[in-house]
Order: sequence, then structure tokens, then C-alpha cells
Amino acid sequence: MQETNTEQVAALLETLSLEEKVAQLGTVRIGTLLEDGSFSRDRALETIPHGIGRVTRVGRESRLEPAALARVVRDVQSFLEAETRPGIPAIFREEALCGYAGRRGTAFPQSIGMASTWNPELLERVADGMSSQLRAVGCRATLAPVLDLGLDPRWGRIEETFGEDPALVGRLGLAAIEGFQGGNHGSVLATAKHFAGHGRPEGGQNRAPATRSFRTLEANDLRPFRAAVERGDVESIMAAYHAVEGVPCHADERLLTGVLRDEWGFDGTVVSDGRGIELLCDDHHVVPDRAAAGRIALRAGIDVELPERECYGSALLEAVRDGEIREALVDRAARRHLEQKSRLGLFESATPDPDCVGEVFDSEEHRRLARRAARETLVLLENNGVLPLSTDATVAVVGPNADSPRHLLGNYTYAAAESDESGLDVVTPLEAIRDRLQTRSVRYERGCEVRAEDDATDGESGDFDAATAAARDADVVLACVGGRSGIDVERDATGTAGEGLDRTSLSLPGRQQALLEAVAATGTPLVVVLVNGRPLSLASLDTPAAILEAWLPGQAGGLAIADVLFGDVDATGRLPVSIPRSAGQLPVHYRRTALSAEQDYVDEPADPWYPFGHGESYATFEYANFDVASTTVPIGGAIDLSLDVTNAADRPGVEVVQLYVRDREASVTRPVRELRGFRRLSLPPGERRRVSFSLSTDALALLDRDAEWVVEPGSFEVQVGRSSADIRLRETVTVTGALEPPSSPVAVLDSMGHR
Amino acid sequence: MQETNTEQVAALLETLSLEEKVAQLGTVRIGTLLEDGSFSRDRALETIPHGIGRVTRVGRESRLEPAALARVVRDVQSFLEAETRPGIPAIFREEALCGYAGRRGTAFPQSIGMASTWNPELLERVADGMSSQLRAVGCRATLAPVLDLGLDPRWGRIEETFGEDPALVGRLGLAAIEGFQGGNHGSVLATAKHFAGHGRPEGGQNRAPATRSFRTLEANDLRPFRAAVERGDVESIMAAYHAVEGVPCHADERLLTGVLRDEWGFDGTVVSDGRGIELLCDDHHVVPDRAAAGRIALRAGIDVELPERECYGSALLEAVRDGEIREALVDRAARRHLEQKSRLGLFESATPDPDCVGEVFDSEEHRRLARRAARETLVLLENNGVLPLSTDATVAVVGPNADSPRHLLGNYTYAAAESDESGLDVVTPLEAIRDRLQTRSVRYERGCEVRAEDDATDGESGDFDAATAAARDADVVLACVGGRSGIDVERDATGTAGEGLDRTSLSLPGRQQALLEAVAATGTPLVVVLVNGRPLSLASLDTPAAILEAWLPGQAGGLAIADVLFGDVDATGRLPVSIPRSAGQLPVHYRRTALSAEQDYVDEPADPWYPFGHGESYATFEYANFDVASTTVPIGGAIDLSLDVTNAADRPGVEVVQLYVRDREASVTRPVRELRGFRRLSLPPGERRRVSFSLSTDALALLDRDAEWVVEPGSFEVQVGRSSADIRLRETVTVTGALEPPSSPVAVLDSMGHR
Repeated sequence: MQETNTEQVAALLETLSLEEKVAQLGTVRIGTLLEDGSFSRDRALETIPHGIGRVTRVGRESRLEPAALARVVRDVQSFLEAETRPGIPAIFREEALCGYAGRRGTAFPQSIGMASTWNPELLERVADGMSSQLRAVGCRATLAPVLDLGLDPRWGRIEETFGEDPALVGRLGLAAIEGFQGGNHGSVLATAKHFAGHGRPEGGQNRAPATRSFRTLEANDLRPFRAAVERGDVESIMAAYHAVEGVPCHADERLLTGVLRDEWGFDGTVVSDGRGIELLCDDHHVVPDRAAAGRIALRAGIDVELPERECYGSALLEAVRDGEIREALVDRAARRHLEQKSRLGLFESATPDPDCVGEVFDSEEHRRLARRAARETLVLLENNGVLPLSTDATVAVVGPNADSPRHLLGNYTYAAAESDESGLDVVTPLEAIRDRLQTRSVRYERGCEVRAEDDATDGESGDFDAATAAARDADVVLACVGGRSGIDVERDATGTAGEGLDRTSLSLPGRQQALLEAVAATGTPLVVVLVNGRPLSLASLDTPAAILEAWLPGQAGGLAIADVLFGDVDATGRLPVSIPRSAGQLPVHYRRTALSAEQDYVDEPADPWYPFGHGESYATFEYANFDVASTTVPIGGAIDLSLDVTNAADRPGVEVVQLYVRDREASVTRPVRELRGFRRLSLPPGERRRVSFSLSTDALALLDRDAEWVVEPGSFEVQVGRSSADIRLRETVTVTGALEPPSSPVAVLDSMGHR
Repeated sequence: MQETNTEQVAALLETLSLEEKVAQLGTVRIGTLLEDGSFSRDRALETIPHGIGRVTRVGRESRLEPAALARVVRDVQSFLEAETRPGIPAIFREEALCGYAGRRGTAFPQSIGMASTWNPELLERVADGMSSQLRAVGCRATLAPVLDLGLDPRWGRIEETFGEDPALVGRLGLAAIEGFQGGNHGSVLATAKHFAGHGRPEGGQNRAPATRSFRTLEANDLRPFRAAVERGDVESIMAAYHAVEGVPCHADERLLTGVLRDEWGFDGTVVSDGRGIELLCDDHHVVPDRAAAGRIALRAGIDVELPERECYGSALLEAVRDGEIREALVDRAARRHLEQKSRLGLFESATPDPDCVGEVFDSEEHRRLARRAARETLVLLENNGVLPLSTDATVAVVGPNADSPRHLLGNYTYAAAESDESGLDVVTPLEAIRDRLQTRSVRYERGCEVRAEDDATDGESGDFDAATAAARDADVVLACVGGRSGIDVERDATGTAGEGLDRTSLSLPGRQQALLEAVAATGTPLVVVLVNGRPLSLASLDTPAAILEAWLPGQAGGLAIADVLFGDVDATGRLPVSIPRSAGQLPVHYRRTALSAEQDYVDEPADPWYPFGHGESYATFEYANFDVASTTVPIGGAIDLSLDVTNAADRPGVEVVQLYVRDREASVTRPVRELRGFRRLSLPPGERRRVSFSLSTDALALLDRDAEWVVEPGSFEVQVGRSSADIRLRETVTVTGALEPPSSPVAVLDSMGHR
């Protein structure tokens, strides 16, 4: 990003009419400017005669090949510069949650998978890769990353999150923002969303109220956003649909202006969620009509309406003219838009070069990156030794997700969202396994579909017979089961997860569990590969020989799954979420207080099916020689600790060493432990490595009863282990001195490897 | 209650030593004063030489027959008056949630059933009945009613609540308090519990943090308590185990002193929950040890420790002597104790008359009351016409709850809590049905136990064969299934609900659903009688011919079930809770906002299995001629409305007419509807009755963004119907004027029939 040319912006703003300023607050869909896939001057003259702030749905709605799209963008910008009075270019925008959402956009793994890598550098490279494709077609803004805490697996969008932990989400969010905004391929505005608390909706229902108080959100959910603002200089924040304590986020001045700008110093733009302003009257019922919705949203601090000008268009113009809202509020938002365009350098050059598009699409570099990323996302939940598979094994493959390219993709990718004719080269697990076992036949029996509604057969046993027969004849049976991610219940009713596709059960949809039970009953060792964005539980099934959580691994998912199954690479993913045993346990996360975490139910234990941080490796790691430099540390000082990690196996492995802290006594109740650092180590067979952490006492801060961040003296247990439930080493440290505020509430990121 | 003799108390307090004042804050279990079932002077001299505030577990721990117990109480009071220096009598205390928890205490229906009667007058009579038995043995305090909102059916204690609705809970709470404290049989201190928010514990786990903010609690959960204080003059409040926003209720001065006393004017005593003070160090970890726990609890406003003197005994004495806490705080609590004893008249007469005990135990009046109450608790969820049964029918009975006396009882009754040798005369459904069908044989096959662990047979089909054979030979099969209420996981591990017995699933425990499926498969019409304290869902079963929710109906439960099944009386209960389809829908209640209530899941609708307010009748009711006196009402005025209700059937029936209001637009998001009144009507066949409501605009108040109660002008929809999901008549009313505070936030009770 460039420095804001504030003088230029101020001067420009002076020259704009009210109509032109309101136009800067507006967004149009690219489709309104097209005719037969080309720019239409007539439509533009009709639609955006006074200019426009943003153009959206650029890749998805145009459905154009990258070079053709770049030409359209060039034409629109030329029109704006030459044929509107203000001559101000627009910001073009497209989704890039796990891939540029236009034709030929590389489909990377979905966010929950990227979080499972515990590898911020890799995520930054992926975001940079998406950024290069956005930039090539002329898009300078995207609506990612999602910084909501993934705290409710019923919620269809949990796949879009980086998991449940504020510190891990904060660290990964910074990586994504840096990849977009500061990447090698030039800047694309990142939009951190959804502000705030979307990840814990009541009942798991999208848009339902956040289940917790503003104070709890402040202590947890707001922290990744604060990091994004204070450490990442994120350019945009998207408001969330829901209400917190009765106040819809889109109308919450305390949140959007008080916290975000006055307290944190944010100076970018706040965008509405799609139709989020309309919702204020249509569903929240806090205003009588859309014009009033526009007024309270603008006052609260929403600078950009999405996806169109329903509340900020002529209604806003009239409201200013009628004296119902001050023009200064329009000026405030317009200035933020223009300053952002200044930082993007749009006033110098707004036009992509259509001839340079080719090199960033269909590139070998992106294909390799997609495969590497997919490999690192895979979490080996369980392995009794059956994995890695030998290429001599006779393998039967079953399940609806073994050979369904679309099922490997996260929502908001182009192919997932809009069209299967994406031009994408998706390799399925079945294809990759067949390719690997070329000389042997691999029998595939689908068994059933993801959803029972889509099953072709009527009977209970039809296709299962073929599947069990295949299993019986094989050395190992590989079942690829899970979900299918859609994007919108109105457009895609066949998904089992995704936006607007919430679910009450965490079991496998349809007859898939019955399929697993049938093939397991043959006695052939069963390897389950879960392909899904929502954590699913097989807790009611006899534990299979191995379970690989593959999430939504993207276009190279099949290759990556084969890479891990056959042991070409270690299984290196670690869970960024706890996986509950059942929906009846919710909320399940590792940061509960003692009275939740340790109190079993009559019919189930209280602990999750698999805990946060869990993931098996093909290697075996030993932890030893824990050394805490001093067990008494003054507030303001640092807890310095180190330990040896040894790969005791005869094969290379990757370990993610996790550092947790338990506060033994505090003025408010605290979680039984909290992640405070991690290291990803690649260790050759037999090798020992010394690992050190330096944990500032700032990282021990809590939000006290008066909602102030403080570091309290007292006793803390420092814990190092393989997961939140597998602590290998621990030591008690006494922190001394008087209460003090931390240098920053996001200082914890310093121990998370953020530079 | 009498007036407080404040001068007498002040004078008495002056004379007390620190040791004697601390003793007034203490509680002893009656067992510590007994030897071989009689009062032991030696033990008393050792245990309570300086006097004692309270004696607890009087009925349960003594296990004495009422007359013998009254003698012990007399002896203890005589000892205190004659042989301790201060000569102050103690307050004796026993549980009376759904019956005096001592030998021969009448077992009334559990609270959730009493709430299903929507009959405050009946509840008041029941509380008065319990009060008479408490009083007879010398107990002047009890730990009821529970005013928590029953918002999580996973929580084992939901049976103890009056359901989910703040207004209904508030109204019923007042009835219970009036029954205890002002009843015909003399005063017994009621204790409203658990303050506050215990009814929505995270994950449904007892003692887990409340899932909502203090503000949400204030707008909802606190209201029944406020009504109890402001309208009911409740004498005691019990603090809740859990933390709200990180602050344990037992250490929350804002709640226990700021809200309760300074804002509401409460002047009784606040008691801890059992071991609740100890929990501050042992589980909440907000203090290092029990002495410190005692200090912060006393400061916050806990006047009474339960069940013993772990934190308020010698530790408190030392703390005052060491200057760690001011003696004035001990004085404050001691004064509250003494004032309460003054109001109870204990300084005039503290001794029960053992010779008068007989008449209130084993009385015909109580037996009749228990049967009438049980009848009114029964909710007919479903009826395809199979009910009422003809006495000519051949009936097969199956299920583990058809002939298990203990399973009919709520937790905290004596028989449930302590001993099956309660001297109680419990009639089971099977006994009552056999009695009714004397001339015909009734075949009973148990089929299975409540819990699979308790099933005797190994196979899947063993007992089901006998059950299905019985069903096949009958005109109708009656399945009594459900749960078993225990009280404490440590003492009674065989319960499926009750305190500490939380559950993740809302399905029938064990093999009971399989039993239902097996008998239903015979084709014989299936009538399910649910005997359980926790709402259970049969949503995954094909709808049976009829479902009767019997809750935990107490000693006369079997008789009452037969009364309704055979149509001697109408089915008159209405649900005080929504019954979810599955735990994955939680939280489920009818007062959600539009974005929760109206957004379906991929795999289930969003609405509950059966809605709040639902209950079928054997009669048919028609609603007509809705008249709203004026559709424009100024703030401060009243919405006057009336309607005709007609019993269109040829048999008498009882209808519960329900009045709801929907706020069409407000400054904060509001529920889709809220109960604002109800009338219970008994209508002869064909009779029409005019029903009127006068709803003060005070009843429209909301807690605004600044946490102030206000009545806002605007548009309100007034709705009248048979349940929250069966609105028969509606009209829009415009409320005009400027914002105003309501006369009281609990003014809604005026429209709920509270005098």
C-alpha cells in the first residue's frame, strides 16, 4: 500500500457534489455494466453517471476468462476516468476466501484446512497467490480473511474460519492480510470479517444473535480483529449480520466507531455484509424502512453498502437533502473511500494489463503451491499403524467423496459458488490413488451419496453389497465420506454446509455412517478420509484403523491425500478446532473454565472426540529437558523456557510444539489453558532439536471485571505438549509485582512468531 | 410474617460477642446434634455452644417420623434458649421443592409439572400444603421455589423450574412464595433460587457459566426474582454456583448487593448454595483458599453458608480478629439473621407442638390435593382420537415407568433423595389402570429398563418379544417411558436427570425408543406416556396415536394419569417449555428473535417438536369476536381487549387462553412474541365465555441499549391463541407518546392475574 495523499483527497472531496459523494459510497454488480460479456457504455451512462465507489462480483458474475475480464475492467475504469465528471476510478472486488472466485482461479484449501497447517508463512504465500490472480484481472479488494472464531460446528460457515482459538486465528489472520496487502504481486485490500462474534451464533444459525456478551466478545472474538488493525493495517472490516445483546452490529456505533476507530485507530473502510443494512428493518426490526436503515448504518460507521445501493443510493441523497442526516456523515465515508483509493494508487494507475494475465493463471507455481498447502492441511486423527499404505496393498475405495471434484472445494471458490465449468483441474482422491497404483486395479464403489435424498437406490443394502464385496476382497478399504459445501441455500440446496446451510447434527449426513459400518463389518481394515468443512463426529462408530481429516483440500486435494496416505510426506496437520462427540455437548472448545471442562454428562464424557491441537504423525516425538530460566518473573519481564524435542522414529517427521498457560488464580474465572505459542519443526529421523520460547508477561493479560486489560501477579502453569489434551512438560512460574496493563492486548502475537 | 422488631434486634445485636455473631451466620446439619435419633445435649454443647443460625437437612438426615422429629426440634430450641448465653432460637430448614423432604411428606408433582397447570392458585395451595408439614415438624425455612428459567433441557435440574418464560415463572414463583410465606398454616421462609442465570448453563452442565451476558440476565432471568422481592416479599435468595462473565455469583457484589438490595430493596437473607463458597477457590480459582473465599462471599453479600461452616466458621472469626475483614460485615449479616428470626416470631415462640403433627401428615386433604395437582399437570401433546380410552378396551401396558413408584417422584422429595422407605403411598400408572379395569386383565410387559445399563437381558429382542406379543393382542398399547430423576451423581448414579445428572441427548434413554418402535410395528394404536422431568423428544419416531407428557407427577401420578387417559377429567396441562426436536437445535425457546426463530437447518426445521403453551384438550375451542377497545393507546394507558371462547365439543373442557404481544419495531431486537397474559377457563359443552384482558403499556417495557427499562411508542401486535405457535386472533395497536419508564419492570404481572 502507498501512503495516503491526504491533501489530494481533501482537495478532490471539495470538488464533489453531494450526488458524486454518495456515488462513492455505492457499489454496483459488474453485470449491470455488461452486455454480451463486454463493457456497455450505454449501461454505464445509465447506472453510474456520477461515478461509483466499487464494482463487485467481478469474476463470478461476469463469468469471463481472465484476459477478457481484465479488458472489461480496463474499459470501466476508462469510462469512469473519461466520461464521469469526477473521473475517479472504482475499486473492483471479488471473493478470495480459498481462491480467486473467478474462472481459472486456483482452488486452494479452505480456511479451516489452512489453519490446520499451523503455518502462517504458507498461508501468506497462498494469500499472495490469490492476490496475484485478483490483481491480474484488475481486482484490488477482496472479502477475506474470515477472523470469526469457529466455535459452533453446526454453523455452516465454520469452514471459513481459522478455528476456535483467538491467538491462532489472530496470527493466521495477520499472515493472510500480509499476503493480500503486502504480497510480492502488489496490494489487494483485505477485508477482515465478520465484525463481531459471527462465529458463535445462537443455535448455530447463520445471522442468529451471538451467544455471548459484548464483554466476552471483547475478551476473545475481537482480538483477531484488533491484531489485524493494530499489527496488520488491514484496510477493510466487514460488519456482521447478527445482533449482540439486542444491538445489530450494522447499527452499533460503539463497535464500529468507538472500539474500531477511536480505541484501535482503524482508518480504512467498514463494509456492510451483503444486504446487511436492509436486514436492520427487514429482520432486526429496529427501524421502520430501508431509508432509515441506511441512516443508522451510516451514523454507526458503515462506509460501504453491499451488494447494491438499496439503502445508500437515492434514499440517502434525499435524506441529506431533507435534513434527516448530516452531510458531514456522507463526507466522512466518502473521504475514507478516496483515501483508500489513494493508498491503492488508483489515482496514478487503475488499469490492469490484459496481456499480462496469462502468467498467473494455470501456472505450475500455483499448482505446486495448492498441492503443498493441501498436504499440510491434512490431520491424521487416528492411526493404528495401517498408515502409511504400502503401494503393494490391494485397496478398495468407497464413499461419495472419493470421486466428486466439486466436493473437494470450499465455498466461495468459483466452481463451488457459480459454475462447475471453472476451467479447473481438480484431481480426486480416487484418481490420485489409481494413478499411484497404476499396475494394480483399484475397485471403487460409491456406496451412497452424501445426502440420503440423492441416493438412487431404494433399499438399504443395494449399493452397500457392492461396497462390502469390494472391501472384502481388499487389504484395506478407504472410505471417503463427509459433506458438500454450498454457498447459499437459495442457489444451492444440495450442500450440507456453507453459508446459510446450518445443521443440527454433527454426524455424517445421509447413509454414510451406515456405509462405514457395513464395510467395517467385513473385517478389512478401514481407513476413513473425511472430506468436509464442518467438523463431523464418528464417535458413535467403532474406531476405524485410521481417520484422516482432509477438510476441503481444494483442487490438489486428491493428490495431497494420496501423498499422505502412502507416506510420501508426514501427516503434519493439527486441529484448529475441538471436534465434539455430538451436538449435545456444544459449546465445545478447549478454553472452557474448569466447571465446564471437567464435568461429565450422564451419557457422554465432557471432553471432545478429538481435542484442539491434536494430530498424529508418522514419526514419534519425545519431549524432555524442560528448562524455565526463572520460576519467578516480574510483571513486564518474560518467561524464558526451552526444551528438547526428539524424533524417535526411523523416518522424518514434522512436529508442532504447542505452548499453553494456565492461570492458577485470577480475579475472574479463566480457561483451563490457553495457547501462547507454537513451533513447527521438521526433524530427520533420530534428530533432537532445542526449542525455545520467550513469553512476555503481556501475554498473560486478562480482561478484568471493569473491562480493562491487566496483567495480574500470581501463579501460572506453563505447559508444553502435542495438543491441548496431551501436555508433556509443565512448570509453575510465579509472576510478581503490582497489577499493570499489558503493552498491548494483542502482545500475545509476539510469542506466536509474528515479526 | 410479622413486622420486624428492629429495636429488639438492635439491642440484642449489641449484646452479642463476635463469636456469637459469627455463630448466627452458621448452619449445622441436624445429624451433628443427634445420637440414636434423639437430641444429644453433649453434642450440642460441643457443636453449638455459642448458638447457631440455622439447622439443616432436618427431615432427610434425621430420618425421623414427624412427631419424633418435632420433639427433637423442640429439644434443640430449648437447649439454645436455656443453655447458650444469647438464648436465640435457630431457624430449622428442610427442602420442599415438590413436597416436604422428610418421612411422610406428601409427594406433589415436580415444578415443571406444576408450571404446566398454568394455575397459580393451585400452586399456592400446594405450597401451603408443604408449608403445613414443614411447620408441623418445626421447620420455618425451605429452599424453594426455583425461579431459574428452564432454558436448557440438557440440564438435569430443568424439572425444578417453572419453565422458560420470565412472566410465567414470575407469576408462579409469587404463588409458591405466597403459599409458603403467607399460607393458612403459618409462615415458612421461602428461598428463591438460584440467583442468577442457573437455567442456561453452558453446555447444559450444572455449575457451568451462564451462557449469556449480565444484561440478558437482567432483561430475562432476573425478572422472576425481582417480582419475588418487589411483589412477594420473599425472605431468602440463594446465590447460584456459576459465573456470569467471569464473575462467580457468590462473589458478585454488584448482583447480591447492588441489584438485589440497593436497587430492589431486598431486606432478607442471601444464602449460599451448598458448598458454593468453597467453589470460589476449589473450582472458580478466584481466591487462593477457603478463608479468602469466605471473606469475598461475605463482602459480596452472602449471609448464610451452606451446608456447614467451612468458610464462615473459625476462619471468619480469625479473619476479623486479624483485621482482614471488618466486623461491620459480620454485623450486617447477623442483623439480617436476627431480623428474620424476629419476623418469624421465633423470639416469642420457636417450638413446634409434637402432639399436633398427626393431622397434617397422611391426611386425606393432602392426598386429594396431590391427585388434583397431578391431573392438572398432564399435557396431552398429541391425540389422533384414541383418547380418552374406553373402559371396554383391552389394554396392554409396557415400559419401565409403568410400575416404578420411585420414577414418578421429582428430585428433592424424601423418597427420591434419601430413602425408598418414605412411608409414602405411591400409586403407579399400572396399578391405577388395573384398578380401573378390574374385571378385565391388563397385561404388563416391562420391555426394558430406563437405562440400557440396567437391562437384564443380553439380546436385542428378549423382552421386546413379550411386549410386542402383548401389544398384538390388545386394542391399545400404553407405553410408559421416560427418565428417572436422581439428585446427585455421587449418591445416586442411576438417575438420568436431576442435580448433577446432565445429558447431551434429548432422546429416550436406553432401549426405550427401540421398545416403542417394536410395539408400534405391531399396528396396535400406541399411546405413549412420558414420565420424566427433562423434556424428551420422540421427533425421530413415527408419531404415535397419542402422547401424554406426565412429567414427574408425584405420589398420585398413576391415579391422575388414569383419570386423564380414561377421560374422567379433561387434559388441561399446557407446556411451560418448548420441547426441541433434538439437542442440536439448542437453545430452543419461543422468545427468540426473528433471525433465530425463522431460519431452518439443512437437516431439521428451526421450530420445536412441540411449542411453548401447547396442549390438546378433549374438547374443541373456538376463538371469535376479537375486540380491541382502541387501536391507539397512549403510553401510561392500557390495551383493553376481549374475545369469545366457545367449547364446541359435546363434553366439558378446560382451555388456557394465551395473550402474546409482538413489538413490531424497537430500539433493540425483540422476541417474535412474548406472553403477556393467560386465563384458565372451565367450559361446559357448547358454552361460550367472554374473556377480557387489560394490558397496561407498562407490560410492553424493554431494557434498552443503556440498560434502562423503557416503554417505547410504536406498533405492537396483540395476539391471542392456544399456544405460542397457534395464534387465533391478532390486532395491531399503536402506542403513542414519548419514551417513558414503566411503573415497574415487573408490572407485567398485573396482566398475569396477580392481585
